[in-house]
Amino acid sequence: MKFTINRDVFIKALNNVSRAIASKTTIPILTGLKLSLDAEKLTLTGSDADISIETTIPVAADQAQLQVAEPGAIVLPSRFFTDIVKRLPEKTMTIAATDNLQAVITSGQAEFTINGQNSDEYPLLPTIASDHSLKLAAAVLREVIAQTVIAVSNQDSRPILTGVHLSIHNGELLAVATDTHRLSQRIVKLENAGDADYSINIPGRSLIELSRTIPDNVDTIDLRIAENQVLFLLDNTAFYSRLLEGNYPNTQQLLPTEHTTALTVAADTFRAAIERASLLSHESRNNVVRLVLTPEDNTAVLSSTSPDVGTVQEEIAFTALTGDTLDISFNPDYMKDALQVIGQGDVNMAFTSPLRPFTIAPTDDAQQFIQLITPIRTF
Amino acid sequence: MKFTINRDVFIKALNNVSRAIASKTTIPILTGLKLSLDAEKLTLTGSDADISIETTIPVAADQAQLQVAEPGAIVLPSRFFTDIVKRLPEKTMTIAATDNLQAVITSGQAEFTINGQNSDEYPLLPTIASDHSLKLAAAVLREVIAQTVIAVSNQDSRPILTGVHLSIHNGELLAVATDTHRLSQRIVKLENAGDADYSINIPGRSLIELSRTIPDNVDTIDLRIAENQVLFLLDNTAFYSRLLEGNYPNTQQLLPTEHTTALTVAADTFRAAIERASLLSHESRNNVVRLVLTPEDNTAVLSSTSPDVGTVQEEIAFTALTGDTLDISFNPDYMKDALQVIGQGDVNMAFTSPLRPFTIAPTDDAQQFIQLITPIRTF
Repeated sequence: MKFTINRDVFIKALNNVSRAIASKTTIPILTGLKLSLDAEKLTLTGSDADISIETTIPVAADQAQLQVAEPGAIVLPSRFFTDIVKRLPEKTMTIAATDNLQAVITSGQAEFTINGQNSDEYPLLPTIASDHSLKLAAAVLREVIAQTVIAVSNQDSRPILTGVHLSIHNGELLAVATDTHRLSQRIVKLENAGDADYSINIPGRSLIELSRTIPDNVDTIDLRIAENQVLFLLDNTAFYSRLLEGNYPNTQQLLPTEHTTALTVAADTFRAAIERASLLSHESRNNVVRLVLTPEDNTAVLSSTSPDVGTVQEEIAFTALTGDTLDISFNPDYMKDALQVIGQGDVNMAFTSPLRPFTIAPTDDAQQFIQLITPIRTF
Repeated sequence: MKFTINRDVFIKALNNVSRAIASKTTIPILTGLKLSLDAEKLTLTGSDADISIETTIPVAADQAQLQVAEPGAIVLPSRFFTDIVKRLPEKTMTIAATDNLQAVITSGQAEFTINGQNSDEYPLLPTIASDHSLKLAAAVLREVIAQTVIAVSNQDSRPILTGVHLSIHNGELLAVATDTHRLSQRIVKLENAGDADYSINIPGRSLIELSRTIPDNVDTIDLRIAENQVLFLLDNTAFYSRLLEGNYPNTQQLLPTEHTTALTVAADTFRAAIERASLLSHESRNNVVRLVLTPEDNTAVLSSTSPDVGTVQEEIAFTALTGDTLDISFNPDYMKDALQVIGQGDVNMAFTSPLRPFTIAPTDDAQQFIQLITPIRTF
């Protein structure tokens, strides 16, 4: 293998693929980066067995200035190789594999010789047929991921809850995640979904990495689903993730259909108050803030107490408050996450009782995006 | 104690003083920030026993909008109090101490009540007479600190070497630091030093924090020296540091007076090559790079080898190379630090033998700034 390439273009591809490479793994060759070269293109592959990312740089791409001298393949130590490439002195560099599994990297007067591994020992990526394919708008996918991954579980006790459940049915995509303390659900209408009908569970971590991998200039993402793998095609990059096995719990029954108290408040104002109150709750053992809603006095008061440190209390400015008086306590970090993915604008919060989950939804989009938080009993 | 103040101005003062406050300390009250208020000014004090910083905000300062309602003093938990102040909703805030050693912090609708401590229990800062006073240009002091602290020792085995030795004599300031593996010495002519004659050892950490504390708008710093303390006066901030006891070793005899090989090279080019070579040296046990100078062939070759990972080799472009052939090995991190504090421009390196310390000095300033690195024996 031997080629010359523009270093900036190569570094971009390297950064993409590196997202999938773990520094510690039970399969040693996966700490490496696979380079394979044929007459038309250079392919970089990284994988941690859960996620695999493959990026291709074609000879035809002008900016890349890719010159293929001799096709071939090698696996190089990822972190170390990346450090070297980033520090090379010139705009272009040449990488040549030797017969004894070393790579010689040259740029200007600098010449590195580093030990590699046989690319034949690198695991093959799954083959996913293109007949189960679906197109998604990149911006929508990014938004759906951001809005749901906040609610995935970090605990391995119920592995299925560490993923986001995606179901595509009747021309609609429904994404939902819950760690049993909170839930986040987003529904998106799909154009051109045809009669696609899938139900899959993608690990939250895969979606976070996918979201970081989607380049700004990509509009449409091609989604392909196989039995235990999903493939996202973004421009010259293929992003593979394993799927979680098992049946996702039925979350539809958890969404309350009525409420007795309702509060409408600007998301950013309320978030700032929640962050202030959490300064106190973070100092105490149970991380709880208290919200007392008194519609007849027209007051909403947020407070928190830590016996060692002190107390905080704040009257919240709101847009509307109706229904019964309510005294409820909850984890402020969940509320902060919920408000953060809503961003600007007003949110509706609907409550039934101090111990029943309450809903949070943007006022302008109530049917499409809804979140649930389970209160904490403090008495 | 009760006052109202502009929050931005207060946060700036808080950030200054917080540099001296350690989150863990053997004297619990020193995790706190001391606030004391009289009719003319608010004073903030932080200390970790080694370093103490005191900043004053006068009523006369327009921007501060300081309104004194009731003089007094209190000690508040520093980190927690800072987090609160930074998250308050309005431009101004009010702090009031209560009889039971609590502080009530209000801003807009937010009200925090936090537990404090009695300010009488806070250690008093040393009193330093103003008759041993000396004026230094802030820019010069910052430069001298940056150039010398790199060479202080991190090891507590010889405490005196963890400091920078400053001597003021004959209208000249000489600053020197060495950890026995390298040395850095800077000399500065002082105007208006008169017959000042001091010799003190300031902990390296104090100087690093001092450098960060000097505001950009301060031109001149007032230096006051007492038996075991030094005080730097910068505008409204007083920076105290303890001094290291003991006699600093005589370092003048370490500076070589002759050389057999000399290399002149652009500091930034050489630094980039050193950083590349150190990628390999960092992977091996002894962190060594090798420089082979061959004046008769007009070549300077830098290299490093790590048996597990690979090798690097680079021919260095230089301005001048004279004298005997030399094959020398050294720690690239020391060289990187040395070149970094020189910055732009050419450096002269002067060598005598593979095992004797060599010097590094900017070509345009040889007498005033000189560094020494001890080579490493590799054979």
